[in-house]
Order: sequence, then C-alpha cells, then structure tokens
Amino acid sequence: MSQRKYVYDFAEGSREMRDLLGGKGANVAEMTRILGPGRVPAGFTITTEACVAYMGAERVYPGGLQRQIDAALHRLETAAGRQLGDADDPLLVSVRSGARASMPGMMDTVLNLGLTDQSVSGLAQATGNPRFAWDSYRRLVQMFANVVRGVPGESLERAIEAVKSARGVRLDTELTVEDLQELVERFKTLLHESTGEAFPQDPRKQLDESVRAVFDSWRGERATQYRRINKIPDDWGTAVNVQQMVFGNEGDTSGSGVAFSRDEMTGAPEPSGDFLINAQGEDVVSGVRNTQDLADLARVMPAAHAELMEILRKLEGHYGDIQDTEFTIEDGRLFMLQTRVAKRPAQAGLRFACDAVDEGLLSEAQALTTLDAAKLEALLHPTFDPAVEYEVIAHGVGASPGAGQGEVVFTAVSAVLAKEEGREVVLVRPFTEADDVAGFHAATGILTSEGGKASHAALVARGMGRPCVVGASELDVDVANGVIHVDGLVIHEGDHIGIDGTTGAITTDKVPLVPPVMTDDFRRVLGWADKLRRLGVRANADTPEDARQAHEYGAQGIGLCRTEHMFMASDRVPKMREMILANTPELRASALEALLPLQQGDFEGLFEEMAGLPVTIRLLDPPLHEFLPSPVELTVELERARNGNSDQDVAHLEKLLERVTSLGEVNPMLGTRGCRLGILYPDIYEMQVRAITRAAIAVRERTGSMPKLEIMIPLVDYERELEVVRELIERVAEAEGLTAGKDYLIGTMIELPRACLIADRIAEHADFFSFGTNDLTQTGLGFSRDDIEGSIVGPYIDLGILDRSPFETIDVPGIGQLVMMAGWLGRKHHPKLGLGICGEHGGDPESIAFFHSSGLDYVSCSPYRVPVARVAAAQAAVASPVHWGG
Amino acid sequence: MSQRKYVYDFAEGSREMRDLLGGKGANVAEMTRILGPGRVPAGFTITTEACVAYMGAERVYPGGLQRQIDAALHRLETAAGRQLGDADDPLLVSVRSGARASMPGMMDTVLNLGLTDQSVSGLAQATGNPRFAWDSYRRLVQMFANVVRGVPGESLERAIEAVKSARGVRLDTELTVEDLQELVERFKTLLHESTGEAFPQDPRKQLDESVRAVFDSWRGERATQYRRINKIPDDWGTAVNVQQMVFGNEGDTSGSGVAFSRDEMTGAPEPSGDFLINAQGEDVVSGVRNTQDLADLARVMPAAHAELMEILRKLEGHYGDIQDTEFTIEDGRLFMLQTRVAKRPAQAGLRFACDAVDEGLLSEAQALTTLDAAKLEALLHPTFDPAVEYEVIAHGVGASPGAGQGEVVFTAVSAVLAKEEGREVVLVRPFTEADDVAGFHAATGILTSEGGKASHAALVARGMGRPCVVGASELDVDVANGVIHVDGLVIHEGDHIGIDGTTGAITTDKVPLVPPVMTDDFRRVLGWADKLRRLGVRANADTPEDARQAHEYGAQGIGLCRTEHMFMASDRVPKMREMILANTPELRASALEALLPLQQGDFEGLFEEMAGLPVTIRLLDPPLHEFLPSPVELTVELERARNGNSDQDVAHLEKLLERVTSLGEVNPMLGTRGCRLGILYPDIYEMQVRAITRAAIAVRERTGSMPKLEIMIPLVDYERELEVVRELIERVAEAEGLTAGKDYLIGTMIELPRACLIADRIAEHADFFSFGTNDLTQTGLGFSRDDIEGSIVGPYIDLGILDRSPFETIDVPGIGQLVMMAGWLGRKHHPKLGLGICGEHGGDPESIAFFHSSGLDYVSCSPYRVPVARVAAAQAAVASPVHWGG
Repeated sequence: MSQRKYVYDFAEGSREMRDLLGGKGANVAEMTRILGPGRVPAGFTITTEACVAYMGAERVYPGGLQRQIDAALHRLETAAGRQLGDADDPLLVSVRSGARASMPGMMDTVLNLGLTDQSVSGLAQATGNPRFAWDSYRRLVQMFANVVRGVPGESLERAIEAVKSARGVRLDTELTVEDLQELVERFKTLLHESTGEAFPQDPRKQLDESVRAVFDSWRGERATQYRRINKIPDDWGTAVNVQQMVFGNEGDTSGSGVAFSRDEMTGAPEPSGDFLINAQGEDVVSGVRNTQDLADLARVMPAAHAELMEILRKLEGHYGDIQDTEFTIEDGRLFMLQTRVAKRPAQAGLRFACDAVDEGLLSEAQALTTLDAAKLEALLHPTFDPAVEYEVIAHGVGASPGAGQGEVVFTAVSAVLAKEEGREVVLVRPFTEADDVAGFHAATGILTSEGGKASHAALVARGMGRPCVVGASELDVDVANGVIHVDGLVIHEGDHIGIDGTTGAITTDKVPLVPPVMTDDFRRVLGWADKLRRLGVRANADTPEDARQAHEYGAQGIGLCRTEHMFMASDRVPKMREMILANTPELRASALEALLPLQQGDFEGLFEEMAGLPVTIRLLDPPLHEFLPSPVELTVELERARNGNSDQDVAHLEKLLERVTSLGEVNPMLGTRGCRLGILYPDIYEMQVRAITRAAIAVRERTGSMPKLEIMIPLVDYERELEVVRELIERVAEAEGLTAGKDYLIGTMIELPRACLIADRIAEHADFFSFGTNDLTQTGLGFSRDDIEGSIVGPYIDLGILDRSPFETIDVPGIGQLVMMAGWLGRKHHPKLGLGICGEHGGDPESIAFFHSSGLDYVSCSPYRVPVARVAAAQAAVASPVHWGG
Repeated sequence: MSQRKYVYDFAEGSREMRDLLGGKGANVAEMTRILGPGRVPAGFTITTEACVAYMGAERVYPGGLQRQIDAALHRLETAAGRQLGDADDPLLVSVRSGARASMPGMMDTVLNLGLTDQSVSGLAQATGNPRFAWDSYRRLVQMFANVVRGVPGESLERAIEAVKSARGVRLDTELTVEDLQELVERFKTLLHESTGEAFPQDPRKQLDESVRAVFDSWRGERATQYRRINKIPDDWGTAVNVQQMVFGNEGDTSGSGVAFSRDEMTGAPEPSGDFLINAQGEDVVSGVRNTQDLADLARVMPAAHAELMEILRKLEGHYGDIQDTEFTIEDGRLFMLQTRVAKRPAQAGLRFACDAVDEGLLSEAQALTTLDAAKLEALLHPTFDPAVEYEVIAHGVGASPGAGQGEVVFTAVSAVLAKEEGREVVLVRPFTEADDVAGFHAATGILTSEGGKASHAALVARGMGRPCVVGASELDVDVANGVIHVDGLVIHEGDHIGIDGTTGAITTDKVPLVPPVMTDDFRRVLGWADKLRRLGVRANADTPEDARQAHEYGAQGIGLCRTEHMFMASDRVPKMREMILANTPELRASALEALLPLQQGDFEGLFEEMAGLPVTIRLLDPPLHEFLPSPVELTVELERARNGNSDQDVAHLEKLLERVTSLGEVNPMLGTRGCRLGILYPDIYEMQVRAITRAAIAVRERTGSMPKLEIMIPLVDYERELEVVRELIERVAEAEGLTAGKDYLIGTMIELPRACLIADRIAEHADFFSFGTNDLTQTGLGFSRDDIEGSIVGPYIDLGILDRSPFETIDVPGIGQLVMMAGWLGRKHHPKLGLGICGEHGGDPESIAFFHSSGLDYVSCSPYRVPVARVAAAQAAVASPVHWGG
C-alpha cells in the first residue's frame, strides 16, 4: 500500500508547493533548484499535512512519517558524508518551523542539533576549534531547553550572567571553553530541575522532540493569537525544515548576514543589508553586536560579496520581486539559507514597480501585482514627519489615514466657528452622529473614544479624507465639562492635540507634518492599472469639492451622491426642520421651495465638475428624525423650562418633543427611510427631482453639453416601490423637459436581502443596480454597524467566528452570495442592466477582487480610495481575467 | 384570423371558469348546465379578459368584442323569440358585474334594459299590465341615470318623494301608471340636466353604455378601496353578465327571494331565506318592504316551493357546500338567477361540516376544506353577548379575539395591583413595550391607541390569548394625567371600559359576556384534521399555564419557550437588573445564582405539563437593555434629582444612567442579542443551561421519565457561533450528567438571511432548525415591526405595494424563498434535520399552507391558535398532499 508522502528533500520541492512545504520550505527548495548544487545546505521538509494529521490524532505521528524521516535523514547523512551524533565528525542540523504564512510566535529554530557530550569532542577535534564546538553545544542545550522543553529564557540568561560575573567578563565572546563547559552543565541542571528530564544524549531523540515541539507550537497561545489577528486559518498547520548546519562562527573567514536585493526602505536599486564576521545568524538579528553594512563585505571578503551580488540578482530575477535573504559564509564559502519577498513601504513599492518595468525585469501587469494596494491610500494624506519623535499619550484605531492636529473641540458647532476664525481644530467626541458631520468638514481630524473601523466617525471621515482615530478607549471624553481625562492627564477644550490616522497614535506634542505627494511613480502605476482593469472606478462624493478631489484622483464618475449630506449643512438644517415640523401643506411646500435652489446649486456644481462623466444622485435616504434634535435632549430641556431653568417656551418644546417622538423609531435602520420616505412624503422627492433636472438643464445651457445624469432610488424591497417612485421621477422630470432613458437613467440601490432574491422583477423597472453593501451587510447579517462594530467584532475575532469586520471586507459566503444572485437575476432579465457597488467595500482591495469576479461594471468609493481601487481592480483583472457578466 | 373569445353563452361556461367569467358568470353557467333547460334565464357573459383589454386600451373595446356581443345577443333573441327594443313584445335583459371575488362597491345591476318610450307600450300590451310595464321602465331610467350615468341617487329619490307627496300616497306600490309616467319624465329631465345627454332610446346604446359602466366601475374609488382592504389584485378585471329578464313583479303569482340551502346563521340542515310576492329581487334586499320567511312559500306557492327545495338540495350536493341563491317566480314558474357558497359564522361552519359528513354529502377531507380556519380562533375566547346591543364609542383594530372589560388602568403596575385586589382591569396605553408584559397577564384586555396587528401589544396579547384592540387612533391616551379623551368624552382611570378584540369595538357599557365553548363539532373536526395533516403543531408557551392551555388545545409539544419572559416577571426583574449592573464578577455570579432556582422551577412546570412531548427552550434572546429603565426616564429623573425635586440619589442615578446608556443601542433589533449575548456573557447561558438540565433531571426523578428536551440557540449567523454555544451547552449539561444527542437535542433558530444562505454549514452543528420568521421578515425586508406596522403598511396597501402585512402572512417570494432555501440546504447536508417554524406566521392559515408545501415538520404558534393551525395544516395536506421534504 502506497503511503502518503510526508517528507520532501529540498531538491524535490519548489515555490508552488508553499501550502504543503510552508513558505520557508518552498523557498529553500526553490533556491536549491535554481542556485545549483552546493549553494544551499541540504535538508528536507516535513509537510504541513503531517502536522495536521499529528494534531488531528492527538499528537501521534501519522503512519509512515517516522519511516520517511529516517530515510530522509539517511540520504542527508550519505550526501554530507557524516552521521548525526557521530563521535568523531558529527553531522549537525537545524530544525525550523515554516507555515504557509510567516508567523512570529511559533517555535522558531533549534540550531546545532546532533551535538552530545560525546560528539562535541569529535567536533572540537574535527574543526580544531574546541571553543567553536563548545559554544555550539552551549547554544544547542540552551535553545533546546528553552524552545523545545519550555524552560524560561530568563533563568538560562541568568546562568550566563552568573558565569560572566564570576569570570569578571562582559561579552559572550570572552567566555572560555571551560566557561562554556560549565554553562552546558548549568543548563542541563536547569533543564532537569525544570522538567524532570535530562538533556537527551541521543541525537534522534533531540530531532524527534524538536519536530514535535514545532508541531505543538502551532497551537501555542501566541501563535493562535497571531493567527486571529492576521486572519490565518487554524487548520493550515506548519511544516518543519531540517537542514544541515553550516557555520558562520568558525573564525574570521566566516560570517552571517541578511541581504536585500534592493534597498527595502526606499526601493533604490542597490542591494542592502547587514552582516557580522565570525557569527551565526541569530547574532545578526538579535542586535547584541553591532552589525556592519553589507557594502563593507566587498572589502572584507570580496569573492563572497561578488557571489552574493550575483545570487541576489538571480533570485530577484527569478522571483520578480525584491528578495530578503539570509546567508552564511563558512570559511570563505557562501551558503544561502533563506529567501523571501521583502516587505517595503508603499513608496518603495512604487519605485520598485517602475524600476522593474524599466529594467525589463517585469511586465507592467507583473509589476502591478507586487504592490499592496491597501497601503497606497496613506500616500495621499499629510503625515507626521517620520524623522520627528513625539510622545504618544494613547492609542486608538487608525480609521482614516493621515495626520491631523489643532485645538481640541467637542462639538460640530465649535469646530465650524473655529474654522471660520481660521483656527485648526480636532473634533473629539465619544462617538459621532449625523449632526456632527458639519464639524468633520471644519476639523483637521476626528478622534472618538468609542467605535471601530466601520463606525459612523470612521466612515464619514474616510469619505471626506479626514484623518480619524476611533475607539481610543483610554480617553474619557467628558463633553459636558469640556475635558478629556487620559491616564491622569487632563486635556481641556482649546488645548493642542494631534492624531495619526494610520497608526492610531494620539499626542499632545506639536509634530511637523509632511505634505502628501502624488509621485511620478504613482501616476505611472495608475496609468498601467487603467489599461489593465475591467472594473470602472467611481467616487462617492456629495459636494463639488469632493467631486473635484475625486476627479483629480481619476474617478470615472460619481457612483453615489448622498443628497442628505447637503441637508446637513448648517444653512440647510433649519429649513429641513421647518419642513419636517410643518403643520400645514402650505408651510411644508414653502420650506421645500426654499430648499430647492440650494440643492439645485449643489447639483450644478457636481455636474460641472464631472463634465462628461456619469453622476449618480441618490434621493433622500435617512429617516427624518436624523434632522431633528434628540428626544433625550429635548426632554431635559423641557424639564428645565418647566422648572423655569430655561428661556425656551414650554409649549413650543412640548410640540417639538411630540413631533420628534412621533417620528422616533425603535430601529431606524429598518424604519421609514429610503424610498419608503419618498413614497410617504412624495413632495420631498418631487423637490429633489426638480432640483436635479433644473440643475442639469442649467448646466446644459451654460456648457452646451448635457450632464450624464443617473437618479438612484434607495432601499427598494418590492418592484412596485420602484415603479411608484419611477413614475414620480418621470412625471416631474417630464414637466421640466427631460425624458427618462434619453436624458437620464433611473436605477436603484440593491441593499436589502429581499431585493436580491427578487432582483429579476426589480430589473424590469431599473436601468441600473448599485449594491449598497453597507446596508446589505447590516440586514443580511442582522448586524447594526453602529452597535456591533465596537462590541461584537473584537470578541468574535478572538473566538475565531470572524476573521475581520464584515463592514471592512465583504462577507463572501453570505452577502457576496446575495450580490452574485442579484446580479445574475437582474442581468438574466435585463442583459444591459448596469451593475455597480457604492458601499464602503468599494474601496477595499479584497472586496474589489470579489466584485471583479462577480461581473460588476464599476465600484464607487470615497475619493481618497479611488487610486487604491484603480490598482486593486487591475490586480483583480490580472489575477482573474474572465468574468461571467454581460 | 381567429380572434380571442370574449363572450360566452351561459350554456358554454362552468364553475371552473371563474377567473375568466367571474364568480357570478361561472356559477350561472354551472347552474344552467346542472339544472337543465328553462330553469335559469338565458344570457351570456363578457369575460374579465375583455375588461382587462378594455382598461389597457384606454377604454376601447378589444377587436372582435363588439361583433361577439352582437352575435350573442342575436342568439339570445332567437332563443327567446323576442327582439331587444321590439315595439310590441320586447326582450328585456339585466346587466350585472361579476368579478372573480364578490366585490361590493362595483356597479351592481341595471334591470329591465331594452325598454324605451316605444317598447314600454308594447310590454304593457303584451302583458296586459301597464302598471308593471311603466314600473319596469321607471326602474330602468332610474337605475341607468344613477349607476350608468352617475346622477346622484338622492336627487332621484327626492323626485319620487315629490310625486308621492303630491299624490298624497306613502308607498311606491300606491303610485299609478300616470304617476310612474310622470316619474319617468322627471328622471329623464334630471338625467339631461345632470349630464347634458338624453336617456338613450336605442336599446343597443343602453346595453353598450351599461357594459362600459361595469368595466369602468372596476376602477371606481370604492371598488379600488375594497380591493385594497380585501387583497384583490387590481389586474383581475370584472366580467359582465347579460341575462334575459324574468319578472317577479307580474302580480300575485309572481315573486322574488333569496334562499339558503341550510340555515346560514346556525348551519341547521333546514333551508332558510326570505321572499316577497309581486316584487323584483332588489325589493327583497333593499329592505323597503317586510319580507316573508321562506317557509311561508310552501303555503303560498307550494309547487314552486317544492321545486326550490329540490333545486337547493341538488345545488348543495353538486357544490358540496351551503348555497346562497336568488330566485324569481314569474307567474308561477321558478327561475334561478344566482347561486354561490354561503358565508357563515364559525360555529355554523363546524355544524355544517359535521352534518355533511353524517349525511354522506362530503368526506371528512372535503368537509374540512369548507371551513375558514382563521375564524375558528374566535370560538375559544369569551365574547360580548351578541344578543345585547351596546354603544360603541370608538373603533380600533381587532388584534386578538375575545372580549375584555374592567376598570381602565394605564400601567402594568396598576394592572398587577388591581389583579391582586381581585379587580378586573383593561390596560390602556398609547403603545406597549417589554416592561408592560406583566400587566398583560393581569389585565382582561389590552387597548392601545397606536400600532397595527403586528405591534408589540398585538403579538404579546395574541400569544397569551388576551383580547386586544390596537390602533384606536380616535383615543387620546394621556398616561401622565390618567385620562382618555375620545370625541368629547373623558374616561378616567378606574372608569369602566370594554373591548371586542374581534371587531375592534370599544365601549363604556357593561356588556354581558358569553363563555367560550369547545363544542363537540369542533372537537370532531379537529379529530379529522389530526388524521389528515402531515405538519405537526406545537405551541409557543413560556409558562406552565400557557403550556396547560396549549396541551388542552392539542399542541404536540412546545416549539418555543422564550426564557426572557420568565425574567420579565416582577419578582425576577430586580435580580436581572442586579446581574446586568453588577460591578464585579462575584456580584454578577451571585445574581445569576439567585435567578437559577426560579428558572429551574419554571422549566420543571413546563416539563411536567408537557410530559412525553418535546419542549423547545430558547436561550436568552433580547438585548440586556430591555430589562433596564429607559434612558429618557432616567435622564428626567436625574434632572429632577439634581434640582432637588426627587428623593433619588444623584450619584446612583448617574451611575445607572451611564450603564443604561452604554448598553443602549441605535438598532437593538440588529444589536447585541441572541447568541451574541450568550457568547459575550457566557455566564448567563451557563446559568440557563444549568437550570434547564437540573429541571429535566428533577422531573425525571419525580416522574420516572425523561422530558423530551430541545435547547435552541437564537440569532445564528455563522456556523462557528453555533459551535461555540453548542460547546458551552454540552460542557454544562455534561457536568450535570446529561449528554447531547442522547438526553436532549441542540438546535438553532434560523432567523437571519445569512443563516439561510449558509444553512448547509449551520446544519453541521444542529439537530434541528426552527425558523424565526418574525425576525427573518424584519431583516430580510429591512422592516422594523415596531416602526413599520403603524406607518408604512397602511399606505403601502393603498398603493398596491403590499396586499397585507408581511408579519401577518409570510412574504413568499422573499422570506419564503429564504425558508425554502435554508430547508433544502440544511436537509441536503443533514437528511434527518428537524425543521419547524415558531414565528407568528405559525398560526396563519395561508402561511401554514406554505410551510406544509415547503416540507417543514411542524409549526409552532400561540396556544389559542393551535386549533386553527391543526385545521389549516389539514387543509394544506388535502390541497397539496405531496412535499419535497425528507
């Protein structure tokens, strides 16, 4: 019976086998193959499948594994011409974990495995270097005790300190052979005291225990925590790499180092890195000794340096990306131990992409795929000068990138007033609501003590490109008394505060800002993206300023103009309230009449800004009570007025409270909003349609060309709702001289599960669908964004129920299924139906990949995310060029 | 080219053609066929399709219609041997509307059509009865002016009064030929003055105008309104019936009447009805003359009576149901004009069903289908004595059947106190909330001025079987001042009030009550239902009392025990609040510890009551803030306390308010509730599981048999949520000695769209699904029950968007699709998965039919609806015996 293959020699693997061999194993195998014999120390990888089987069988090796390890070890011994544990000239190996994704927190490395009380002498003799042999043995016993057997690192370190202080020396390198021998004894004693077991003198037992320790560490607390945070599934398991040791600590013709194929901080095309003479790799990364710059290696060991440069070029060319490698020079001979794609800042990534194309290394499409699209947004906001250090008083969640600073204000009104006086302010609130939006415009940044990445504050700030930090729970924001308490510190209204919306840092220092730049590299990359992508990219923009910004960032139209934001402006809210509170149809009509020219002006601005590009305007969506004061505030005010503690008129307040209460809703998200509002109060929609059509006509007369107008109806459940509102729009527009289908289009938001389920019927009355995935997520999951983000998402991630907020990246099995279903049903009925998405997910790279493969026509996102979306859409097209759409 | 057939002679149709010929046309055709020639006056029907085409073509006859009417009329004239408008012996016809469903508010009837100034003399001569001829002509001109041309009925009636008073007579029958001739002239003048057109002297024009008037009346305001209320689609259209006139007003050997094949009020097996000698049918129904009892006909016209009895028996046998007929006797010869199934009270329906089986008329299955299941519920509540008249001061919506009366109270606390003192009370509120539930138990009825049939008050009252009237908007309920204002009347706390939860009537009279009876007929019908149905019927019950009631009504288990209702009881709320507000884990644990024995006691009661039957217990579902005072109340109290106007401690109130505010949610429906609560606060679920398992064990020890326990987890979105809570349940239950799968089952509510979409994955961890169609409707449609029922549903029905509330009958295209999908996916993965439904829809006959055909195993509804559900489930099984389920 043929058994499953659990062990692969390095020479058998390749980089495509990452899932099976782990990242480290796959890359070592790949390197072994391309660099040819003798350059990579030989070894083998025990697969992730072996780990999964081991965990599933309650820590028992799967059948055949032991035999396969034995065979692989035998091959390694034969090739090396040495035996593990040989008394005269032993083979030594390293054991390293290696999951699919890089994972700190797992058991890392056991070096020099194979040394015993006997073979250490053999090694000393064979190398003629007893200090090297005993230092290696000391390292093995220490690592084994610590990482395999769990003896606390500190107690082992204390033993070293004790010996050093007894000898009166300061550095590890000053320890003699005798000192090292004593240390080995002390470590063995500690190990025995701590675990009741001796250090194993059988090298096969050392190996077996180390392999098991790697497997077990997958389930360790820190690794589990790391997986939660980094969204790595629990069932991947880890591979184990067993590799012949080479020694950078054999003397002055030996050394170890790390080398990047290009400068990993700037992307500049020169290799960079660090090394140490006469050292093992762990000495380089531990930071105990001061490393030398890689350039110095050319002087010290010119031949090895030249070989390394050649190898770096070869690896980079092979992988098509900047490589981050580890090397060891053993007595002048260069060995490569590891290679992987280097992490880099966004700007360096852009530079590499451009250089790689210019050098002929990569095609434009290949170069694009080397970029991390989500990181690009940060390049479009001013940031704190990275060269300046500042004191962080607290950390929140970075919710909208860029840095903002100014005086603390606690209300939207204060923010607006300060702005008018030319002062810069940061709006600080426990959380924000619709009423606060005017303050967002006026502030340089928004800071809240509650909420998560999809809270109201985060969403609105991101939409406007305002830096924002949310959920800074250490802050006690006392709006009533105008102070913030944080860890004993008291910050008053008017005091200086600064926030970094990328890192979430909060400071009271005044930190210099660095302005944003759209570099030539960035522009060039966006040019490639536009050639490669199939998805259109539009912006969500409510004002001409937003539209201008969006246009500048390459938006191909406005996918969502939220007309309610126009009503929130301070000159509009009183008229809006007047309209809502009107007693008679006449008062109501006259309030609407007053709002009409204001709306018309806004629309004219949008149309002119987006000349020639589509502009999708959504009719009023939120419930009316969002425009009114809160019942709690009013109740308190009324109580005060009744007690003579307020100037306000009791009767007036009573009337107001009655109206506010009657409009109040238990679950406003599921209440009288969207087209329900337009159907119950048709005069509001009529006014809006009149303002939209008049604006379009005015712009046509002024510019000679008709705006590409799309009117969008929110929150449709029933095809008949769409029919009723469509009739209203066509009637009003026709009276102004515009005809549906010819002069403008009518579409609908698809943002309720029912609408997805009967999308074929809805498509009968729609020219286009725009998925509102925010509300679709709220209803499809029964998750109120405002209520859930702060309280549920965190614990759910910890418990492995969620891997991230469904408001950040679309929930593919649930909400994604609804989107696919609705697109399919809609297009089945109406093959030319336009399909877009205008929720927050429109700016999220992973969600964009899903929308690409779902056959949507475009995504629409906040202006600052437009460049991100262009790149992500191109990456999706490169990864998956086909789609099912029309 | 063959044209569509728009006209059918009566002899061509049958009852199956109701959609095409309308109810009246189909029944007349059926009757023509089965009663043989000469018994039904000949005629023809113009189809509903002709009406739909006419409406669609802006009031133009579809091609071929005119020609087909001409041909049918020609056939009718040939058969009758008379011509329409013939000067000597004219054919007269009636024109009647007839939609698929009976529809008051549409144009009803034009009689005697075909008379003109000329033919009236011919008729007088041919019959030798000038008075008859002129009375017929007078009727035609009057009806034509009124129903075809829209002359107000009052002005025509005033003309009759004027002539009568001029002649000094009182009765119509006292008018002479000359008087009638004068009336015809007066009517013609009124017609001309009112419409500018003369009465048409061309009978074909009379016919044409009448047909168009019938078509047009389909769109009339009253008919449209009626359709909205009765959920009749706008696009059905109406048929038109043209029938040869026969005359009950030819003298003393003639007459007209209505006859039922059995007593329509009691169901007793004797025919009943009324008739008038020398009268047309309209005289019988108008109530102008006092009718005679049908029994008298045996004496006056024994031959005709005998024929009628024979025909009634024949019709009833043919239709298999009580018939409601109209007949005319023309000079001793009996003609049948119409037949239809008779409406009847619930009790009469049961009697007929039983008698019909005993008589061999119907099988049990057939007899069951004659019942209106929804009406049966009313039989299980005390009602106002129907023999007593009382004054209705206002009308609301009858939301839970039965009558309740007692003193007015405005708060739950007052209700509870009054109950303790032995006083009967009606709880009157603007609307109700969770806090008020204790008052429901204590009150004999609940009355609210706001809300609809699915408001909180309605749902809870229905669940408990408490009579309830909601949405009585004429009432101004001023809780603060303890008064109700209604139309000038002031009702104080403590005054008497009575409500009829079936009709919605409200009275201040003391009306005697009639106790409910489960009659033998009812019991027998339920016995048949139980033999025929496939769906199980369980009850939603939260207390041993509810369970007892449910058991008595035949529930086969408890499908939903809402444990939160147990916490709402007045002795529990303080402990629940203590637990929620606890500062330390210790305080929290001790509060939970105190709640445990109380919950355990409740569960023991339930288990004992339902011995041998399954009991499904849902773990805590609502958000915690539902157990706390409202922030508005607290804010006011705090403001008062700060001003020294309250005894309460400011610091305590501040702390309380802070906690209440922090738990408050913008959209509690979508917030921290259901299993989310159990995952965030596992100690609550742990306490509940401990209480449940200990109760089960205690009952097993006491009774020797283990309760059939099913533990249900609410609001699952992700399979991992279920997994986490399942682990908790299994761990706690195992510690108490019970094993999942062996001693109890674990299932989940399916009440979120996402859960339906990934039901296959969820089924991996569930023994059963129970659909929570209330919440599934709220999330799938984005409809907050509390907010939408009162504000949106009404206008939406008026606009034809909805035909009824989706909370009353399940929305099949949307929510139904989700239920089917989830059932299918769940069973695909897990063929033995139990499937039930425990939303309000479980008691709605139409929804039950859907659940039957969706393959569910059972429905669960409030105890008082269990008999309804048993009958409805049987009716569904008879109508559609196959299903796709396992």
